[in-house]
Amino acid sequence: MAAFDQKGFIIDLDGTVYLQDKLIPGAVEAINQLYEKGHKICFLTNNPTKQNSAYYHKLKDMGIKTVKEDILSGTYLSALFLKRNMQEGDLFWSEGEDALTFELKAAGLPMASSPEMASKAVLGGGPSFSFDYLNNMVQAYLSGAEIYAVNPDPSCPVENQLIPDTGAWVAAMHSLMAEGEKIEIIGKPSKNAAETVIQYLNLPPEKCFVIGDRMETDILMAQDFGMNSILVLSGVTKKEDLLTEKKIKPDYVLTDISELSNLKIV
Amino acid sequence: MAAFDQKGFIIDLDGTVYLQDKLIPGAVEAINQLYEKGHKICFLTNNPTKQNSAYYHKLKDMGIKTVKEDILSGTYLSALFLKRNMQEGDLFWSEGEDALTFELKAAGLPMASSPEMASKAVLGGGPSFSFDYLNNMVQAYLSGAEIYAVNPDPSCPVENQLIPDTGAWVAAMHSLMAEGEKIEIIGKPSKNAAETVIQYLNLPPEKCFVIGDRMETDILMAQDFGMNSILVLSGVTKKEDLLTEKKIKPDYVLTDISELSNLKIV
Repeated sequence: MAAFDQKGFIIDLDGTVYLQDKLIPGAVEAINQLYEKGHKICFLTNNPTKQNSAYYHKLKDMGIKTVKEDILSGTYLSALFLKRNMQEGDLFWSEGEDALTFELKAAGLPMASSPEMASKAVLGGGPSFSFDYLNNMVQAYLSGAEIYAVNPDPSCPVENQLIPDTGAWVAAMHSLMAEGEKIEIIGKPSKNAAETVIQYLNLPPEKCFVIGDRMETDILMAQDFGMNSILVLSGVTKKEDLLTEKKIKPDYVLTDISELSNLKIV
Repeated sequence: MAAFDQKGFIIDLDGTVYLQDKLIPGAVEAINQLYEKGHKICFLTNNPTKQNSAYYHKLKDMGIKTVKEDILSGTYLSALFLKRNMQEGDLFWSEGEDALTFELKAAGLPMASSPEMASKAVLGGGPSFSFDYLNNMVQAYLSGAEIYAVNPDPSCPVENQLIPDTGAWVAAMHSLMAEGEKIEIIGKPSKNAAETVIQYLNLPPEKCFVIGDRMETDILMAQDFGMNSILVLSGVTKKEDLLTEKKIKPDYVLTDISELSNLKIV
């Protein structure tokens, strides 16, 4: 009998597993089957506003047999990434929704008592954003902190509206930083996200498959870092978009995640 | 007797007339002399947080014999500019400190009842800035409004600190706008500011003198729009900065505004 060929699946959430609160038909069965076969799985979303436990409960309620640690929400991914790259004496500062600070603290990262004391400061988006949030990041930066952002997206769709996301605040910060200085992005499609998930799954990139609905995040990250990519057409990318897109090419294209079992790789 | 050669003086405030609350010695006498001789004067600042009346009282208390209309604060300049360019059916929206909305309303500009109804939306900075402010501007933009900003400065100095100003929010907005679409800047050094002050003074540009402490706003605007420029070294620009700056060249350089009467032009 041939040895089981264990693979890693990095699965996006909104547009891939569900659309806001509506489950994609067949998603539960497709994902549970991966777990049952013994594959390694993590869920990866750029959303900077929620703890991984929020997604855990949502997925459990939908019938997906996952564990909390497998859910690399923007905030939890940030905590994992920063912990992995922590240096002696590092003190952290965060600006965003409470979930971001919660995940950093839960990961045991030592927090600074003021922005000026921080060696690393992390920016996340969300509806609580204020002048003070940006100003605190500016003061951290002017005091020498390295600046990170949970995700690069300027906007996100919420209830059929497009609202500002972390990337808009990243642009505001960049306008205040010295020429050539850049904020390090932690989420998709960055190298930091790719390395963090590959390390979490502990498999070589060529054994990993990114499943997602966004060309410029999910598919681009897979392409850039030697992982395989599976585009699902259940979210923002439509079949006709594939004709106009020249640089980003998914390895597989599925109508939705329910078709995953049709692929030989599973 | 030769006819009086009336000129226009466009005078910056912070760094030129005073440093925060400290009057530059001789500034009152220099400015009052210009008024007494019959020259035309306006004060031009990019600050997006105050009404012109706030500056009026500050200058009066310092002993400067001015009138309220001569103070083109960022908010009042915006109102003048927008009124001058108003088209039939225009409805306005503003996000910033209350002073901005106050000046727009005081100028008689018709305000929209929601961001989605606006044909022109104006962005100003200030400590009240919030997620909702940016989101309202985004919704105005997505509904087709033209977007304006009071000033382009990403940061401003306040009590020896550098804090975010309107330009940071402009950068955030740009990250959310379609490629190639730009926010129209109303303040210095824009064409809009130059045209508005030239029209206010009602003199040809070559009869106008911009006095200010900033190369990239005061002196650049004068240079770009055919006005004369007088750099004062009482603010942010230092003598040694003149050696490194290649593109922007002031016509006159003074230690401070008290030296104005030494120039033949007055």
